[in-house]
Amino acid sequence: MNPAEKRIAEGILFTDQYQLTMAQLYYRAGLHEKHVQFDHFFRSYPDYGLHQAGYCINAGLEWLLDWMREARFTDDDIAYLRDQRAGSGARIFHDDFLDWLRANGSFDGITLHAIPEGRVVHPNVPLTVVEGPMVQAQLLETALLNVLNYQTLIATKACRMHHSGRGRLLLDFGLRRGQGTGANAGARAALIGGADFSSNVGMSRVLGYPPKGTHAHSMVQIYMALGMGELGAFRAYADLYPDDCLLLVDTIDTLESGIPNAITVFEELRRKGHKPVGIRLDSGDLAYLSIQAAQMLDAAGFPDTVIVLSNNLDELVIWQIITQIRDEAPRWGVDPDHLIGRLTYGVGTRLVTSWGEPALGGVYKLVAVCDEGRWIPAIKVSDSADKTPNPGHKRAWRVYDARGTATADLMSIDDEDPRTADRLILRHPSDHSKCRALDRSEIAEIEPLLVEVLHEGKQVYDPPPIDAIRQRREADVSRLDPGVTRLINPHIYHVSLTDRLWNLKQSLIASLIDQDA
Amino acid sequence: MNPAEKRIAEGILFTDQYQLTMAQLYYRAGLHEKHVQFDHFFRSYPDYGLHQAGYCINAGLEWLLDWMREARFTDDDIAYLRDQRAGSGARIFHDDFLDWLRANGSFDGITLHAIPEGRVVHPNVPLTVVEGPMVQAQLLETALLNVLNYQTLIATKACRMHHSGRGRLLLDFGLRRGQGTGANAGARAALIGGADFSSNVGMSRVLGYPPKGTHAHSMVQIYMALGMGELGAFRAYADLYPDDCLLLVDTIDTLESGIPNAITVFEELRRKGHKPVGIRLDSGDLAYLSIQAAQMLDAAGFPDTVIVLSNNLDELVIWQIITQIRDEAPRWGVDPDHLIGRLTYGVGTRLVTSWGEPALGGVYKLVAVCDEGRWIPAIKVSDSADKTPNPGHKRAWRVYDARGTATADLMSIDDEDPRTADRLILRHPSDHSKCRALDRSEIAEIEPLLVEVLHEGKQVYDPPPIDAIRQRREADVSRLDPGVTRLINPHIYHVSLTDRLWNLKQSLIASLIDQDA
Repeated sequence: MNPAEKRIAEGILFTDQYQLTMAQLYYRAGLHEKHVQFDHFFRSYPDYGLHQAGYCINAGLEWLLDWMREARFTDDDIAYLRDQRAGSGARIFHDDFLDWLRANGSFDGITLHAIPEGRVVHPNVPLTVVEGPMVQAQLLETALLNVLNYQTLIATKACRMHHSGRGRLLLDFGLRRGQGTGANAGARAALIGGADFSSNVGMSRVLGYPPKGTHAHSMVQIYMALGMGELGAFRAYADLYPDDCLLLVDTIDTLESGIPNAITVFEELRRKGHKPVGIRLDSGDLAYLSIQAAQMLDAAGFPDTVIVLSNNLDELVIWQIITQIRDEAPRWGVDPDHLIGRLTYGVGTRLVTSWGEPALGGVYKLVAVCDEGRWIPAIKVSDSADKTPNPGHKRAWRVYDARGTATADLMSIDDEDPRTADRLILRHPSDHSKCRALDRSEIAEIEPLLVEVLHEGKQVYDPPPIDAIRQRREADVSRLDPGVTRLINPHIYHVSLTDRLWNLKQSLIASLIDQDA
Repeated sequence: MNPAEKRIAEGILFTDQYQLTMAQLYYRAGLHEKHVQFDHFFRSYPDYGLHQAGYCINAGLEWLLDWMREARFTDDDIAYLRDQRAGSGARIFHDDFLDWLRANGSFDGITLHAIPEGRVVHPNVPLTVVEGPMVQAQLLETALLNVLNYQTLIATKACRMHHSGRGRLLLDFGLRRGQGTGANAGARAALIGGADFSSNVGMSRVLGYPPKGTHAHSMVQIYMALGMGELGAFRAYADLYPDDCLLLVDTIDTLESGIPNAITVFEELRRKGHKPVGIRLDSGDLAYLSIQAAQMLDAAGFPDTVIVLSNNLDELVIWQIITQIRDEAPRWGVDPDHLIGRLTYGVGTRLVTSWGEPALGGVYKLVAVCDEGRWIPAIKVSDSADKTPNPGHKRAWRVYDARGTATADLMSIDDEDPRTADRLILRHPSDHSKCRALDRSEIAEIEPLLVEVLHEGKQVYDPPPIDAIRQRREADVSRLDPGVTRLINPHIYHVSLTDRLWNLKQSLIASLIDQDA
């Protein structure tokens, strides 16, 4: 794509055709300015196969707002739509609609509430609530899902890797394995979720983080081909980057060549008054090799150098490496805790693709329509009760128990405030037999989750910087029960409805069944 | 990201930090203008878990060329690099290098050979061969892998779905489930590989394909909330799009409400002289429902309407649906072949993410360095023989047997032309015991695979339009053995070396082991 094509394909036409055909229909039916509400939520946590998430990290909102601000129908876009032909050869889009769209096809009537980025989120709770004129709300769907689904997916995966690595430094190396420019969204989400730095230069620059990296195998190969060998390559690197000397030691043979050569160069650096940073292992049995590397580096007097591990790492592989080090390091005379404390993890493919579950099934569902000033809750009865969205205007709350641990997310009708209740009834969203009651004394805090972001198109929320988003994530994760954060078979966190919302939902389902019959 | 940030993050800084630190090292060592060759290839076919690819479809080249043409270091990029600080606080990049980079940091010395887009490709055969000054070739790595890996991955997945659907219409619906703007690359690759149309408006426009789509559940829900019901929604749609009337029938109840209402509207259309297009099923047992739908549509006199199926389809689900229809349709009085012939598949998540294998492990490996006019083959001895890249300047050939079926891909040394040999020896790339001989009489054709695309930065190749790429793909796939194209446990296609290339590789490995010892 050339730059002009890119502007077309990433602008307001970054959407599905049916959004436009529906928009014209609403316009022609005179419904286009009726207000509607769509909820954006996901139905289940990512399930990676052998392991599953018990929480997600919300991400992407700022980029959605950026897109909404820029997306407008240009004359050129309208001319393109004017030329679209139906099967019969007739035009699909008519002049009256296109004129209206040219003038009104923006998001300036949208009111948007959202759970802030970096927050822990759970299934079926609205992450984003879009209210506004029907056409505007409908035209937002595709881009909203595209932007928010992916960043939430990756922030979640990064958080799991960060957790699995015991908070040791985590580096995002995913750029070459992402979906084109989408990898930039991945880098941002990785930083939100738990990566500490990224190798991606452009995104690091945009986000104000220093990019991280060392050298590739090719550098060693070039020195070898030119007869200067691995040691020559390492020396050249150390000369140029004496205070950032991190050497990749597996081009020839990690234990026989790479680490001994690295130690030679580290000793030279030390004599010149510099402190070497460490080594990177990118192949082989990383747990075994890191024990051997630690032993050799310790013996040479470099116990504080880091050992960067990379090569298809994910949360399970990191966990396995740490477990193996705990089990095996002692018999090599290496202190496992010290070794684990000097590890850094470089994660690429399995982070940027969310290996095991490469898409978040976030959806955008109509929940209410405003008719003559009255909001009518809308419902879709699907094939299964747990897929039926929760209708109408709602609020979302997080309930913390007496220990300060998040114990449930609660959806209520818009005019309910559970903070004023003496006793909280938490109903399962689809199983009528499941119900839980909490006395006021069992509750430390009830916190509203949604904040107003856009008010009739006007931004009334300042997206926080990445650092603040990261702190928000850390704070939220620290208030989860350990059972919820474990990697395999996590506890099911409660997502509940108030009694009133439950009753509304049941009555709507019943009325639909009547209508249908 | 705002537009200015996007230009930064998608320009020349769309790269990994180590490319820049290595570039400075080559510059400082006086190596930066030495020529090198990198081969881009993948090591194994996508393995989706329960099923595996036996071939890939090459894609992405045109977008890589577009990126290379635009990517330049701006003053602003240089200023950013000037400000980067090492751990010690010292600058990472020095003025002499940055001045040189500002003037020379482009790809105008690159000579690039590639296998054209749409061609069937196999592991370890170079898909892209990059030759040029060391810094330029190194700076290309990240973007090249990012662009080519993903599009090849998705073109391959689309081809499998197209194959599984027996060539029936395949629609890409993946936009909302891709990685941000990377979903646009996915739409293009899907069209190359086997999707016939996309719902993605912007990319369809850029590529000159009509975008496809109908309506969403929300349209029916809105009409229901306003008391006009599903039938009202269908009527409104048919009034506006009488010649493109495709109705989504599963919002309430597919068999009890959706299809009967659709038939009512179709009959009204017919009376007005229009031909309804068909229905879409987006939930439930798609095979069972499509049989019932066919029966109902046939009985109402609409045997030619299409039935679009969607909802987490992939090549296995499509295969299952067709199998179930073949088994079950007859007992409902429905002709299975006629029904299969009217199906259209809408594929989203599992196409755009290449479900089961969300990244192609394409790599970019140094294979030769030019020193004082002499090319020195470079090699990296990894932990396993089959991961050792094939060294030096090579050519890639496809050998067709007497039936005209592709029987092997063959790599030779640059000055070899296997077309002149009386007898072809095909050696396994790593297993010395495996060897195959073909007499001239057993060979219909030997075809060179790589074409010159860039000659010292100048484009000498005209990227073909998507239609031509699609035809190329069809032609190539038709020349594969059916065992290679099957979905599960495909035949292993032979990728071989000539005797001379095999000998070169062995002697290099031996010399490296000597050097190491």
